Amino acid sequence: MRSLKVAERREFLEKKLRINLGNMAKFTLDPKKIANRNCENMIGAIQVPMGIAGPLKVQSAKCKVQSYYLPLATTEGALVASVNRGCKATRLSGGINVFVENVGATRAPVFRVKNLKEGRKLVDWTKKNFRKLKKIAEGTSSYLKFLKIQPTIFGRNVYLRFVFDASEAMGMNMVTLASRKMADFIRKGTKVECISVSGNLCVDKKPTWQNAILGRGKKVWAEAVLKRKIVKEVLKTTPEKISEVVYRKCLLGSAMAGSLGFNSHFANIVAAIFLATGQDMAHVVEGSLGITTAEVLKDNSLYFSVYLPDLMIGTVGGGTHLPTQKEALSILGLGKGRKGESLEFARIIGGAVLCGELSLVAALAGGHLVKAHEVLGRGKK
Amino acid sequence: MRSLKVAERREFLEKKLRINLGNMAKFTLDPKKIANRNCENMIGAIQVPMGIAGPLKVQSAKCKVQSYYLPLATTEGALVASVNRGCKATRLSGGINVFVENVGATRAPVFRVKNLKEGRKLVDWTKKNFRKLKKIAEGTSSYLKFLKIQPTIFGRNVYLRFVFDASEAMGMNMVTLASRKMADFIRKGTKVECISVSGNLCVDKKPTWQNAILGRGKKVWAEAVLKRKIVKEVLKTTPEKISEVVYRKCLLGSAMAGSLGFNSHFANIVAAIFLATGQDMAHVVEGSLGITTAEVLKDNSLYFSVYLPDLMIGTVGGGTHLPTQKEALSILGLGKGRKGESLEFARIIGGAVLCGELSLVAALAGGHLVKAHEVLGRGKK
Amino acid sequence: MRSLKVAERREFLEKKLRINLGNMAKFTLDPKKIANRNCENMIGAIQVPMGIAGPLKVQSAKCKVQSYYLPLATTEGALVASVNRGCKATRLSGGINVFVENVGATRAPVFRVKNLKEGRKLVDWTKKNFRKLKKIAEGTSSYLKFLKIQPTIFGRNVYLRFVFDASEAMGMNMVTLASRKMADFIRKGTKVECISVSGNLCVDKKPTWQNAILGRGKKVWAEAVLKRKIVKEVLKTTPEKISEVVYRKCLLGSAMAGSLGFNSHFANIVAAIFLATGQDMAHVVEGSLGITTAEVLKDNSLYFSVYLPDLMIGTVGGGTHLPTQKEALSILGLGKGRKGESLEFARIIGGAVLCGELSLVAALAGGHLVKAHEVLGRGKK
Amino acid sequence: MRSLKVAERREFLEKKLRINLGNMAKFTLDPKKIANRNCENMIGAIQVPMGIAGPLKVQSAKCKVQSYYLPLATTEGALVASVNRGCKATRLSGGINVFVENVGATRAPVFRVKNLKEGRKLVDWTKKNFRKLKKIAEGTSSYLKFLKIQPTIFGRNVYLRFVFDASEAMGMNMVTLASRKMADFIRKGTKVECISVSGNLCVDKKPTWQNAILGRGKKVWAEAVLKRKIVKEVLKTTPEKISEVVYRKCLLGSAMAGSLGFNSHFANIVAAIFLATGQDMAHVVEGSLGITTAEVLKDNSLYFSVYLPDLMIGTVGGGTHLPTQKEALSILGLGKGRKGESLEFARIIGGAVLCGELSLVAALAGGHLVKAHEVLGRGKK
Repeated sequence: MRSLKVAERREFLEKKLRINLGNMAKFTLDPKKIANRNCENMIGAIQVPMGIAGPLKVQSAKCKVQSYYLPLATTEGALVASVNRGCKATRLSGGINVFVENVGATRAPVFRVKNLKEGRKLVDWTKKNFRKLKKIAEGTSSYLKFLKIQPTIFGRNVYLRFVFDASEAMGMNMVTLASRKMADFIRKGTKVECISVSGNLCVDKKPTWQNAILGRGKKVWAEAVLKRKIVKEVLKTTPEKISEVVYRKCLLGSAMAGSLGFNSHFANIVAAIFLATGQDMAHVVEGSLGITTAEVLKDNSLYFSVYLPDLMIGTVGGGTHLPTQKEALSILGLGKGRKGESLEFARIIGGAVLCGELSLVAALAGGHLVKAHEVLGRGKK
Repeated sequence: MRSLKVAERREFLEKKLRINLGNMAKFTLDPKKIANRNCENMIGAIQVPMGIAGPLKVQSAKCKVQSYYLPLATTEGALVASVNRGCKATRLSGGINVFVENVGATRAPVFRVKNLKEGRKLVDWTKKNFRKLKKIAEGTSSYLKFLKIQPTIFGRNVYLRFVFDASEAMGMNMVTLASRKMADFIRKGTKVECISVSGNLCVDKKPTWQNAILGRGKKVWAEAVLKRKIVKEVLKTTPEKISEVVYRKCLLGSAMAGSLGFNSHFANIVAAIFLATGQDMAHVVEGSLGITTAEVLKDNSLYFSVYLPDLMIGTVGGGTHLPTQKEALSILGLGKGRKGESLEFARIIGGAVLCGELSLVAALAGGHLVKAHEVLGRGKK
Repeated sequence: MRSLKVAERREFLEKKLRINLGNMAKFTLDPKKIANRNCENMIGAIQVPMGIAGPLKVQSAKCKVQSYYLPLATTEGALVASVNRGCKATRLSGGINVFVENVGATRAPVFRVKNLKEGRKLVDWTKKNFRKLKKIAEGTSSYLKFLKIQPTIFGRNVYLRFVFDASEAMGMNMVTLASRKMADFIRKGTKVECISVSGNLCVDKKPTWQNAILGRGKKVWAEAVLKRKIVKEVLKTTPEKISEVVYRKCLLGSAMAGSLGFNSHFANIVAAIFLATGQDMAHVVEGSLGITTAEVLKDNSLYFSVYLPDLMIGTVGGGTHLPTQKEALSILGLGKGRKGESLEFARIIGGAVLCGELSLVAALAGGHLVKAHEVLGRGKK
Repeated sequence: MRSLKVAERREFLEKKLRINLGNMAKFTLDPKKIANRNCENMIGAIQVPMGIAGPLKVQSAKCKVQSYYLPLATTEGALVASVNRGCKATRLSGGINVFVENVGATRAPVFRVKNLKEGRKLVDWTKKNFRKLKKIAEGTSSYLKFLKIQPTIFGRNVYLRFVFDASEAMGMNMVTLASRKMADFIRKGTKVECISVSGNLCVDKKPTWQNAILGRGKKVWAEAVLKRKIVKEVLKTTPEKISEVVYRKCLLGSAMAGSLGFNSHFANIVAAIFLATGQDMAHVVEGSLGITTAEVLKDNSLYFSVYLPDLMIGTVGGGTHLPTQKEALSILGLGKGRKGESLEFARIIGGAVLCGELSLVAALAGGHLVKAHEVLGRGKK
């Protein structure tokens, strides 16, 4: 079916399967731009409803207070309303403090050595040739900075975790290309075979303790302090109840379940923003890792925080250039490749996750999760 | 913004932010049907390109050989082409064997007891009142069957993991409502307080060892045996190299990384099918858990298998009724709520994941992952 | 050196290495009884100081209040004193409530099958032949009851987790022998090869989520409520501070560290009791898994609990028959093989672990851990 | 009982419980030296049989080939014989290559801050005051070097993982004292409260991914290549079978079980050496983490390796000064506090673990594990 055009492929399916694909035929995407970058054998486009929440109010060490409307693409009723409610509660409480750290994009080829000695030699070799490797890596793209190598040896295996700054892009394609070139250079210089340009110590698109502990992409911390009155009026519950739900569910429950995430539903918010803004949806797996904490302060207000150690995101590249996704980014003032955009994006995601997490935990604490799905889902009030 | 209509909200943003949201304004969704079920504060729709791979050829204990074209919504170049290549290689090898098991949808409220004794009493009470609880649960929906309770006690906490059969729906909304009603009944009968209708032993949308071990939703096993010749001609590598990549990357690399998944990129394929067919995208987190194995058989052919223990999927409900998503399901012959559809869907996903996994591992083994992203991504058709 | 006697081997080393091994030559063990059961190539005995703590006061659903002096073999200063202090605090508070569950000893052979279909056939075969398997297993020892099989299939692997009741013994030798006989019978009946009588789903002597979730050996729950006054006078701190240490250290700290145990130092107490009573010291790895909780109750007293899901213990067999170990068991009133002894032993361990855990957490909360090592370690009597 | 002497306490128990504790009364330990350092409320000594295996032949980058007799204290029949067999097989194959890395002893106090900003300030403060902190830490012991701080912030928590070189001691007492002094200094300088001198990111005596990934104490790698003939003659099996057991049991089985260790029984060997040489037995929990690999090389010989990332050991301090333990260390030529001794000890443990692991896996591969417990356990041949 490769030689066919979009409409021809679709019509082929319609005839063969006796179905109608009329809705997916309606799109504003340009198939030519997509075929070489985002999707092969295109037959149309899927439409996912996009809602808006906010404004979200965040502030950071470097930036003054900023407000954002949040584009969220989802099919799960109550999610937009829930994030919206969290935005309101935190906005009325003076906003959300966020901090970010750029850990970097990573790729870790695995090499097969004869023995431990050769493995150690290989690692030494990469240290001695770091400047050359850097030159090779950075020669593949002007947007890429090669930062360091984190080596792991055991048995006949050497994993070299290459760490990069990919500017405002999520960067995995760039990073993989650079890693391949470096792996080739290492193979030529050492005669050691590279078994795979990815050795699963990257770790890409799998939930891992390594990424949870060391971080990957961007790390984000977000916190808010909510006055008792606002918790009561906006969230319909109390700081004590919210704190108890986080304790018994997010901490104790997760501990018992052998969970890699100690939170309530980071994945919902991360998925909705990722989908709206053209991120790689498989990165939701890592992006939703993290810990929620809630504590009642001495003045009876609520301290609420989220920590996300592994956000692989970009404001350029990947699916960000697609028409609707680009528009969603423009709602956030992003998508122009301005320096620092991806860190700003991380701050927004941190804030949004806090809002969604706070609102769901409050709904659970108040005993109105189901009601939330009924009432908020219907967008009343 | 809740009282506004879709266009009014969008125009409000366009004016306020001085941006143009013309593309997301073009959709065939019916906002009225969505507002109450899938998305609040709608401003438009995101479009994601949909490609087609296949035919995928699968067979199971109960079903004769079946062929499917796979709808995949993605923005990641090379993914559709990669799955397509896996379909070809397995098709030429006689197809993929799949097995499924319906574990069930789960929700686990957490109760706070005075002490261990009261906790044990509570569990005993639920055993004695199982029939009543079942009646309550099943009274909330004719599609729901309440199967069993898996209790966990420690300290002052009791978690009751309710297990349901939700027919062809993914079912979390149904299941949560039923759990809420049961929790109310338990509270009234025992005077024990339910702290949260979800206690994170469900476990919903987080990567956990509990679900990996006990399963959730559907479990799927898929396997194929590929002749050496086909591995060489279609996948451009050898069974030995594929087996070695799985060994050093998916097993040893994952072991060292503290990974919950021992695979290469299940998340990519799961995310693309989920997005195409209106599944809850946050379920990619659980749905992508699992193990890949590859072994060279005595006749030098390749044995390749995938195991996915935690697929939360449905062919009705959630986002499956949206126009383009419904069309995507129709390509698979699904979406009519026919009995057994969701198990068939699980079989298809298992087969598709095997194809995508096989193809990527082969690309890594042959040293042409990057090339894949360049060449296949450009669909040299 | 195998034909030599104990003294000859020792003297050989003394001459060859020019060292003096005079202390290890002094023992009351009977080398003849040991050579065939506990230790080959014996050259002497190691001496570990044994201290006594208590009385420990525990009560359970089935037993009235009971008191025990705890034998603890350790070289770590302050440990005995710390457990002792915990015994005092709980004794003055009315004792410790304990509950136990006999999960059973397990062994899981791994079989290599041709494919998934053969794997499922194999599992079906074991279900059909369960009675025969039971007869074979129980024919190897009159102390053994074969309870059930927990099968796991993926790829070309079938793991059959055999679950046994080994009476008052820890039982791994018995269980392994029975599993070997059953595996032989299965191989003969199905022509499927058993690759290893242990497939690491047992799981023996490794820390695993499977055992943490499903349990192994004995599960124990223990709890105590301590009045504020006693916390202050005996433990020199407050319920609030203890609760905060458990929260920030045992829960949040462990969550961040990717820990399989959410406790402070279960391993210390488990190791000291195991060593004193002739348990297999490698079982400390599993035996120390578990969760500590602490909460301040409404009347400002302290609720404190521990949960241990994986205690592999016995009061007969293994090292329990050695002279000093037998004496240590006799201090607990155990070691005669009386029915129910091993469950009583589990209750004692649960209580002891609670005491040690409480005391250390209190020392941390009061800021006198180091002092504890100095002052308590000196036993200021 | 604190004012009583050893014999008085023992007699008190004998009378009260009507038991005889005559065996534990016989020891060569000096109670006075122990009371203040190793054990309070002493009533006697436990005797554990000590066997000898070897010679073990190891070589490393820095040391020429060295041979050791291994002291192993255990009550588990067949263990000494099994390690012995591994020593023979590797000795005949030219010995074991070992590499070690001194990661350091660690302690991680947890501080409660007001918010993220204060947390970041606290971390900055420790960076600015690193020299002062180092002076304080190193002022507590001339054997201690303070290396670095690994900080972790989330919510209102700051964990400062202090990393030390404790020379030839395991060092936790030293390290805890130094950490306490530093925590005091930090509290005075920043007004931030230290909640606990250990915040479970140390991580001490719990199985954690953090330690598995970052290492703690000593990391050890050991490997051997065994000719086919030796595998057959000494281990009674083939390289292929050994490799398959490691693959299906240690890798696939562990992956499915959610195991933190991908090995067969590191814990057995580590426990026996630790017990013989006066190590802290609770450190077996961390010390037994690690990965085994086995591969058949092109010349049909067997490559076998073990990796242990988390060995907390010492040749001075703790229980190493006790008479029998000191003798056991002298068999290894250790225990004098000579510089580099603890690294040499780590190399020996790595080698011994490889031998024990190889021998058990071979017994499983050959189908004679049970026989091993019967035959080897009886020390025949």
